[in-house]
Amino acid sequence: MTNKDARTPASVQDDTSQEAGKSIGWHKAYVEGSRSDLRVPVRQVHLTNGQSVTLYDTSGPYTDPLVDTDVRRGLQPLRENWIIGRGDTEEYAGRPVRPEDDGIKHTSPRGGLRNLDAVFPGRPRQPRRGRSGQAVTQLAYARRGEVTPEMEYVAIRENVSPEVVREEIAAGRAVLPANVNHPEIEPMIIGKRFLVKVNANIGNSAVTSSIEEEVEKMTWATRWGADTVMDLSTGRNIHTTREWVLRNSPVPIGTVPLYQALEKVDGKAEELTWEIYKDTVIEQAEQGVDYMTVHAGVRLPYVPLTANRKTGIVSRGGSIMAAWCLAHHKESFLYENFEELCEILAAYDVTYSLGDGLRPGSIADANDEAQFAELKTLGELNRIAKRFHVQTMIEGPGHVPMHKIKENIDLQQEICDEAPFYTLGPLTTDIAPAYDHITSGIGAAMIAWWGTAMLCYVTPKEHLGLPNRDDVKTGVITYKIAAHAADLAKGHPGAQEWDDALSDARFEFRWEDQFNLALDPDTAREFHDETLPAEPAKTAHFCSMCGPKFCSMKISQDIRREHGGSRAEIEEGMAQKSQEFAAAGNRVYLPIAE
Amino acid sequence: MTNKDARTPASVQDDTSQEAGKSIGWHKAYVEGSRSDLRVPVRQVHLTNGQSVTLYDTSGPYTDPLVDTDVRRGLQPLRENWIIGRGDTEEYAGRPVRPEDDGIKHTSPRGGLRNLDAVFPGRPRQPRRGRSGQAVTQLAYARRGEVTPEMEYVAIRENVSPEVVREEIAAGRAVLPANVNHPEIEPMIIGKRFLVKVNANIGNSAVTSSIEEEVEKMTWATRWGADTVMDLSTGRNIHTTREWVLRNSPVPIGTVPLYQALEKVDGKAEELTWEIYKDTVIEQAEQGVDYMTVHAGVRLPYVPLTANRKTGIVSRGGSIMAAWCLAHHKESFLYENFEELCEILAAYDVTYSLGDGLRPGSIADANDEAQFAELKTLGELNRIAKRFHVQTMIEGPGHVPMHKIKENIDLQQEICDEAPFYTLGPLTTDIAPAYDHITSGIGAAMIAWWGTAMLCYVTPKEHLGLPNRDDVKTGVITYKIAAHAADLAKGHPGAQEWDDALSDARFEFRWEDQFNLALDPDTAREFHDETLPAEPAKTAHFCSMCGPKFCSMKISQDIRREHGGSRAEIEEGMAQKSQEFAAAGNRVYLPIAE
Repeated sequence: MTNKDARTPASVQDDTSQEAGKSIGWHKAYVEGSRSDLRVPVRQVHLTNGQSVTLYDTSGPYTDPLVDTDVRRGLQPLRENWIIGRGDTEEYAGRPVRPEDDGIKHTSPRGGLRNLDAVFPGRPRQPRRGRSGQAVTQLAYARRGEVTPEMEYVAIRENVSPEVVREEIAAGRAVLPANVNHPEIEPMIIGKRFLVKVNANIGNSAVTSSIEEEVEKMTWATRWGADTVMDLSTGRNIHTTREWVLRNSPVPIGTVPLYQALEKVDGKAEELTWEIYKDTVIEQAEQGVDYMTVHAGVRLPYVPLTANRKTGIVSRGGSIMAAWCLAHHKESFLYENFEELCEILAAYDVTYSLGDGLRPGSIADANDEAQFAELKTLGELNRIAKRFHVQTMIEGPGHVPMHKIKENIDLQQEICDEAPFYTLGPLTTDIAPAYDHITSGIGAAMIAWWGTAMLCYVTPKEHLGLPNRDDVKTGVITYKIAAHAADLAKGHPGAQEWDDALSDARFEFRWEDQFNLALDPDTAREFHDETLPAEPAKTAHFCSMCGPKFCSMKISQDIRREHGGSRAEIEEGMAQKSQEFAAAGNRVYLPIAE
Repeated sequence: MTNKDARTPASVQDDTSQEAGKSIGWHKAYVEGSRSDLRVPVRQVHLTNGQSVTLYDTSGPYTDPLVDTDVRRGLQPLRENWIIGRGDTEEYAGRPVRPEDDGIKHTSPRGGLRNLDAVFPGRPRQPRRGRSGQAVTQLAYARRGEVTPEMEYVAIRENVSPEVVREEIAAGRAVLPANVNHPEIEPMIIGKRFLVKVNANIGNSAVTSSIEEEVEKMTWATRWGADTVMDLSTGRNIHTTREWVLRNSPVPIGTVPLYQALEKVDGKAEELTWEIYKDTVIEQAEQGVDYMTVHAGVRLPYVPLTANRKTGIVSRGGSIMAAWCLAHHKESFLYENFEELCEILAAYDVTYSLGDGLRPGSIADANDEAQFAELKTLGELNRIAKRFHVQTMIEGPGHVPMHKIKENIDLQQEICDEAPFYTLGPLTTDIAPAYDHITSGIGAAMIAWWGTAMLCYVTPKEHLGLPNRDDVKTGVITYKIAAHAADLAKGHPGAQEWDDALSDARFEFRWEDQFNLALDPDTAREFHDETLPAEPAKTAHFCSMCGPKFCSMKISQDIRREHGGSRAEIEEGMAQKSQEFAAAGNRVYLPIAE
C-alpha cells in the first residue's frame, strides 16, 4: 500500500544514493505505534518521480543496515517487555534437554545431558509459561476486550484499526501466532479479513543440511516474503537446529511435533505414546514454537476410508497416526488426549494448526469421504480448542481440480466456524512434476480469493526432491503472486495501489521503478538487461516486447498530453489532433536515437 | 487419454529398449482413420507395468525417427490430396514477391524481384485459392453437412465423433484453421467443446534472430505442446522467414498482417492504406498463413475511451490503428473494408482472429468501457464473417484481476454467438515482471475452465525482453498446465486418465513412469536425480519429499495388500492387522537398505 495515510515512517535511512537505488531501490523504514517500542517495519520504495510506495515487509532486521545482526547471538527480543508487562507469565527451570532430543542414542559417544546454553550460544534464557496454567493467548486477551501491543502492531501492518484485529481474533476468524517463548518475532496475523499470508517449509533431512544452512534458508525465505516458516527437520540435531532457527527468526515458526516424537522411538510408530508426544510438545513450546500441526483428526474409523484411494494417505503425520491406530487397533492418542493438549498450548500461546492427515494426494482422491470425515472432526476439535482459549487454524488440501476447490473452503468455513484455513496449494493437476509450484499456484490463488487465510508454498521440487535455495525463492515468489492476486480479487484495501504504482511506472517508461517495485527486482532487471543492457534503455521510451521500432503506449501519451484527460476535450480536439499528427511526421514511434 | 477405445495405434516403433525408454520413454504412433492417408499421430508412453498411455501429440514428424525431415525441403504436404480432391480450388500465378515484402528498400543493393523458389529452396509451388471466389472454408463444408478428412482427423485426436466436430464448426463454436496453401499441417480444432489449446509466439525482431532460429523456435515450441504458433516477425526478411516457418510447420501458423503492412510504409501509421493492407493479406494468404489477427474493432470513436486509462493502449495493432484513425480523423479502414476482407479470407480458408486492440494493459484498466465497446464491435464483425463462411475466433485480454475474469468470457460468449475465445493470459496482477508466465497462468487456467478455447502463452520475459529458447519452453509448459487443469475442471472425456496414470505410477513408486508421463520428463528426472541420483532410487519405495526414513504411501499399500480393497474387509481385518503390525516389527518405513 502507498503511504497516503496519516502515518509516515518514523525513520528512513539517509542513503538514497543512485548506487543504493540501483542495487536495492528501497529502504527499511518504521511506522511507530502508540509506544516507542512498537515500531512496524515497512519496505519503502523510492520512485524516480519523487513519490514513494510503502510495502509490507517480512524480512526482519536483516535488511536494516542500521541493525547489526549475528546468528550466534540471535535477534533482539522485541516483545519481551510486552509479555512481561502483562504479568500473567512466569519463568521456570523448564524441561532438561536430553540427548534424544537431538536424535542421539544414550549409547552414543555424543550422549550426556546438555542445557540450553550449550544448544545456543546466545543470551541465556529460561522458558516462560502462564501462571497457574492460565491461558496467556491472544485469543483470551481479545475475548476480554484487550488490545495487546501485538494486535496494534498487526493493525498497523494491515492498515486496519486495532479493534478490527481484536474482533477477528476474538471471533476465532484470525490467529496471531506468538509463543511467549518467541519474543523475537515481528507480530503478524492470519485471517481472511487480512492480507493472504504465505508459509515456507524448511528443514534438514536424511540428505542433511547443516544448522547454519537452515537458519540461512529461513532468512532467505523471509527475504522474499514468507510470512511464517515451518521447520520440518528430522533426524540429527533436530532440537538444536530448531533453537537456532527460533532465536534468529523474525516470523512465527511452525512445526509438526509428531516428526520429532517418531524420531524418539526410532521411527516405530506403534511405540509412540501420549507421554512421549506430550513431552515433545512441551520441549518445543519451551523453545518458542509459535504454531504446531497436530493430526488429531486422523481417527481409527477413518483409516479404512482411504483403502480404495488412488494414492492412499500422503500426509506424513497422517500416515504415522494411521499406522499407530492400526497397530494398537485403538483410537488416536491425539484425539483421546486433545483437551490436555489444549491446556499445554494455552499456557504458552502456541497456536493449533489442525492437520489434514487424510488430504487427497491426487486429483482422483479429491473431496472424498476420508477427507471430509476428517474435516468434520477438525470442526469438533476447533470448538474444543476455543473452550481452552487456544488459537486455531485448519489445514487444507492437497490435490484438487479447479471445479472442486470452492467446496473445500466453503465446507471448512462452515464446519470450523470460520477458523482460518491454511492450505497446501491445492495442486490442480498431477501431470507436471517439476512444475508443481505452478500447478499449485493456480489453485492457491483461487482458494485464497475464496477465503483461505494462509497458503503453504510448494516448490518446483515437490514430489521429486529437497528444495535448494533457488527452489525456495521460486516457491515463495510464486505464492506471493497467488496471495496478492487473491488480495486484489478480495478488494483488500490498498492492495491495488501496488499494481497501480508499477503500471504507472511501466506506462511512463520508468524502468528502474518497475524493477524496484517488482516482487523480484533482481530477476526483472536481469531479464531486461539480457536484451537491452545499455543504460539509455533504462529510460528508453519503448516497451522491450515491441522493440524500438514503435510503441503502443506512446500514442496514448500523445493523446493525453495534447488533449488533457477528459473524453469531451479529446473528442473535441481529435480533428486538430489529426493535423498535428501529419505535421509531426506521423511517426507511431520515437526513433531509437531519441 | 489412455487407448482404452477400440482404435489401436496403426504403427508403433519396435525400439522399446531400456536405453530408448530411458532417454525418451515414449514412441510416436499413428491412429489410422477411414483412409490410408489419414494417420493421426499420438504420443504413446510405455509404462514399466506393461500398460501404455496414449497422449495428444503436437510435435509433428520431427519426433518420428522413421521420417527423415529437412528444413530446406519442408514437410510433406499431408493434406494436398484432400484439398485437390475437393475440386473447388485452383492454382494460379500468384502475386510476385517484391523486395519490400522482406523490408528491402527499392534503393537497396539487395533490391530486384524474386520468386517463391528463391525465397524457399524446397519443392516449387503455386498458390491456390477457391475457384471463382467461392468459400473453400471448413465452415462452408460443415454447413453443407460435409465431414472433411480434416474434421475426421481432429475427431480422432479429440476422441469424439466426426459429427460432433462438424456440428461445432457449423455452429461457429469451433474453428479448424487450415489454409489451402498450408497442406503440411496436422489438422487441429479450437473450440470450448474440445481440449483447450495453447499458442506460442515466435518472431525475429530488431534485436534480430536468424531465419533458421525462427524455424527452430517453432519446432521447439511444438515439441513441448504448442498447438499453434504465431509468427510476429518484423523488420528484415519477414516474408522469407514466414515462408520457411510455414513450409516446416506441422501446426497452424497465425500472423498479424498489420505488422508487415506497417513495415512497408516505413513505420508511418498514417501512410497505411487499405490497398497496402489488402496486398499484404493476399501475400500472406498465398504463403499459407492459417489465421490472421485483424484489429478491425478499434474504431475512431473508441480511441478517446482510452484517454483516462492507466496504461492506455497496449496492443501493437490497436495502437497502429488508433494512430491511423487520429491522423486522418477517419473510421478504421479495416472496419470500413471488412466485407471485402472476408471475401479474400474465404477464398483461402484463412481464419479470423479478431484482435482486441483495446485490451487492458493493467489491473486498473480491466473490463473498462473501451474494452467492452470494442468487444461489441467484434460481435458485429463475427456475424459478418459468418455470412461469408469465414471461420472466426475472438481475442481476449490481457490484464484482469481474478474477480473480473468470468465477466470477460461470459460477455464474449454472449456477444459473439459462442465463437471461440482466444485469450492472452489474463495476467491476474501487475507486480511480478519476470514471473508473468505465472501471473497469467493463473488467469489462463480459470478463463479456460469457464470456456476459453485457446490460450496465448506468456513467457517470463513478458514486459522485459525477447524470449529465448528456455523462456519459450517455460511459457509453453506453464500454459499446457493451465490448459490441462481446465480440461480436468471441464470434465473433458479422458483428461483425468493422464493424471490417474501418473498418480498410479507415483503411488507404486514407478519413478521412470512418473518421469515419462510428466509434461517435462527431462526436468522431472533431473530434479529427482539432484537429490537421489542412484539408480536404486528409481525403484525405491519412498517418496523423496519424506526422505528414506518413512513413507506415507507405503502404509496405504500395506492396508490394501493385506486386506483387499473393500472397506468391510478392512474393518473386519483391522484387529488382525494390529497383530501383524506388531509381528512385522512395526516399522512405518522400509529401511534405506531394503
